Amino acid sequence: MFTIKNHLEIEDGQLTIGGIPAVEIVKQYGSPVYVSNESRIRDNFRRYKDAFPDADLYYAAKANSNLTLFKIMASEGAGADVFSDGELYLALMAGIPRDKILFNGNSKSDRELLMAVKTGVRVSLDSIDELRTLSRIAKKEKKIVDVSFRVNPDVSPQTHPKISTGLKASKFGIPHEEAVHAYKEALDLPGVNPIGIHCHIGSQILEISPFSEAMNKMMDLVEQISRLGVDVKFVDMGSGLGIPYEKGKAVPSPKDLADLILPIFKSRCRDEGISPKLILEPGRYIMGDSTLLLTTVNTMKEAAKKFVGVDAGFNLLIRPAMYDSYHLAVVANKADKKPEEIYSIVGPICESGDILAHDRELPRIEKGDIIAFFDAGAYGFSMSSQYNGRTRCAELLINDGMIDVIRKAESYDDLLANQLVPSRFL
Amino acid sequence: MFTIKNHLEIEDGQLTIGGIPAVEIVKQYGSPVYVSNESRIRDNFRRYKDAFPDADLYYAAKANSNLTLFKIMASEGAGADVFSDGELYLALMAGIPRDKILFNGNSKSDRELLMAVKTGVRVSLDSIDELRTLSRIAKKEKKIVDVSFRVNPDVSPQTHPKISTGLKASKFGIPHEEAVHAYKEALDLPGVNPIGIHCHIGSQILEISPFSEAMNKMMDLVEQISRLGVDVKFVDMGSGLGIPYEKGKAVPSPKDLADLILPIFKSRCRDEGISPKLILEPGRYIMGDSTLLLTTVNTMKEAAKKFVGVDAGFNLLIRPAMYDSYHLAVVANKADKKPEEIYSIVGPICESGDILAHDRELPRIEKGDIIAFFDAGAYGFSMSSQYNGRTRCAELLINDGMIDVIRKAESYDDLLANQLVPSRFL
Repeated sequence: MFTIKNHLEIEDGQLTIGGIPAVEIVKQYGSPVYVSNESRIRDNFRRYKDAFPDADLYYAAKANSNLTLFKIMASEGAGADVFSDGELYLALMAGIPRDKILFNGNSKSDRELLMAVKTGVRVSLDSIDELRTLSRIAKKEKKIVDVSFRVNPDVSPQTHPKISTGLKASKFGIPHEEAVHAYKEALDLPGVNPIGIHCHIGSQILEISPFSEAMNKMMDLVEQISRLGVDVKFVDMGSGLGIPYEKGKAVPSPKDLADLILPIFKSRCRDEGISPKLILEPGRYIMGDSTLLLTTVNTMKEAAKKFVGVDAGFNLLIRPAMYDSYHLAVVANKADKKPEEIYSIVGPICESGDILAHDRELPRIEKGDIIAFFDAGAYGFSMSSQYNGRTRCAELLINDGMIDVIRKAESYDDLLANQLVPSRFL
Repeated sequence: MFTIKNHLEIEDGQLTIGGIPAVEIVKQYGSPVYVSNESRIRDNFRRYKDAFPDADLYYAAKANSNLTLFKIMASEGAGADVFSDGELYLALMAGIPRDKILFNGNSKSDRELLMAVKTGVRVSLDSIDELRTLSRIAKKEKKIVDVSFRVNPDVSPQTHPKISTGLKASKFGIPHEEAVHAYKEALDLPGVNPIGIHCHIGSQILEISPFSEAMNKMMDLVEQISRLGVDVKFVDMGSGLGIPYEKGKAVPSPKDLADLILPIFKSRCRDEGISPKLILEPGRYIMGDSTLLLTTVNTMKEAAKKFVGVDAGFNLLIRPAMYDSYHLAVVANKADKKPEEIYSIVGPICESGDILAHDRELPRIEKGDIIAFFDAGAYGFSMSSQYNGRTRCAELLINDGMIDVIRKAESYDDLLANQLVPSRFL
């Protein structure tokens, strides 16, 4: 038995997760299938928490909002960063305490703001316009909502442009030079109580130095708004810490991030004589490497390349097609075999871009082999679709050698869900 | 009243579809919402059919597989190009005749091939490997399946690389130089009856000359395989004819395509003394411009740009984020107003790439305005997801001044559909 990556081990040539061979999982539960390892999720969360013992961790629901996984977060004491009415609904269903839910979002509808007011969660405001709308709604409901502003710190996180969220040109947040003005208005308006500040610089960040720049910029603002009279109770630095999709790649850890930003945070709080809570919003770091997407080889073809056709495509895992992302692919039933061929692994979707893995050196592959895509726990199922009339697959959770189905595979009925055919067509 | 684009008209400053103001639709059915115009779908189909009176049109289900829209196709006499078990299921539900369904796919599972065998539809084979699998399955079921091969003609369609399907390096089809060999094997194997040939060069094609190259290459092969003894009953040229997403852009019509390829097809059939059916697989051309995605302005923000936050993002329309696609955006309630400002219209999804329209010159926009995205009928709802915990919106069909709901908006329950929580979490 040896470890291939993180918690994933190879035993007698078989890739295992939570001690169970991937092949057995597919045999029992079908293919394709997402399978998560509960202990890895908890370990990841605790590693982050250990690095930031005094901070609150608000789990970023968008990474994976499966209800059971969300409940694991709740049981670990996490809060939640939610970005829609649906994510708020799921966070509440999962049992996340209301005072640990921050409703983020750059374009919340009035209905969503009303839901925030009624459920009593905190709201991170994205603009002055939204501040005014929320104030009006809260006043009408005779409620006072705790708010922060999402401030755009204008720092460059060197990640994929589609997920760099804190650049000047980004759609998110208010420009940091306008923040003081925004807090001034918030202090004056009814129904809203400014108690925090919030930023987020991007996702899958592998070079953490921009976090210190962002931390300093936020603390500059904290200083300024404290002097305005804002009692700053939290500073939410978002997160976006990257994970090593490539085997053996060294990446910064939560501890590295803590070593970088905690001294700044603490000394600046001391200087100012304030003691706000630090909040971080990990998502990918918690869920990413906990989960495999298991697929079966349908067909082999030698054309311009050696193509391996599997039963999952960008309907289930869109990151390779959308962001050119890399996911390690392992032939689960030949996990100790030497690489012999260069393959491209393609999904069944009717688009040329539906390629899960380009030019990988792998053992000789045959029809029926099981290919595991690693690190599929974040932005995997959560971005899945029914494109090409494909039903979405099951999600499984392994804990203590037992497998639970946490989402059943869809049936054709689910393709027809909510559809109505006008009677003139019958 | 004047026409803004195709069937869409402006009356008293209001954008209308099927004679109904967009604003009224949103008032009655909520926002965001997809709304299709039945008469436009039928007109598009008939225009294509008029250009190819002797051909069979197999509707490409992936463009939009809503059951009611599929039934419109069935009522027009269309066949169907399906690419999965789910699309086959929907085609049969819609009443498409079995002998007019071609089951395509580069990575069909054994279960999908068995479904094809059992339902008696035609199968387009993507590889020799798949030929052998299908033969084995059909033989076991004591059935004979009519098949074609999808041949990769190696022509460049000059469209987006993610949807160029007929390049040499593409994952689709068998290389054309290996096709004769493949048909030879098909003639020898039990359970399969080669009766056609199939290719597809791409999607959203605006320069049709590659179709004549592809037609000639296919007819070269038809000649060769006829001499082998294959009774070629159909030649399926796919389709991929583009539509003008930009207002006023001149694009080739089905008639232009017919003028280009029919003479080649007819003369080569005559030379060979054969009379196969020509098949084409339009999808986007039929559905694309029939449909608007109506959204509501949630919030306005002036930061690096003037951002308009609407209530639909790449959860509902992924083409701009995934392919940098352009969709015309019109302020439906100010459709006759002059442009005054440059806006970027952004969705509510927590990714920087969630921008539906970049830097558009539009009338002054306010919260509550309705923005219509044009040409959203193809690869719109069909690629939608529940990402960020967002429920998918309703689909409406307008016909003869009446509105039918053809898919209800999802509720939070639909986010939880099929989810199971292990009892230890309760």
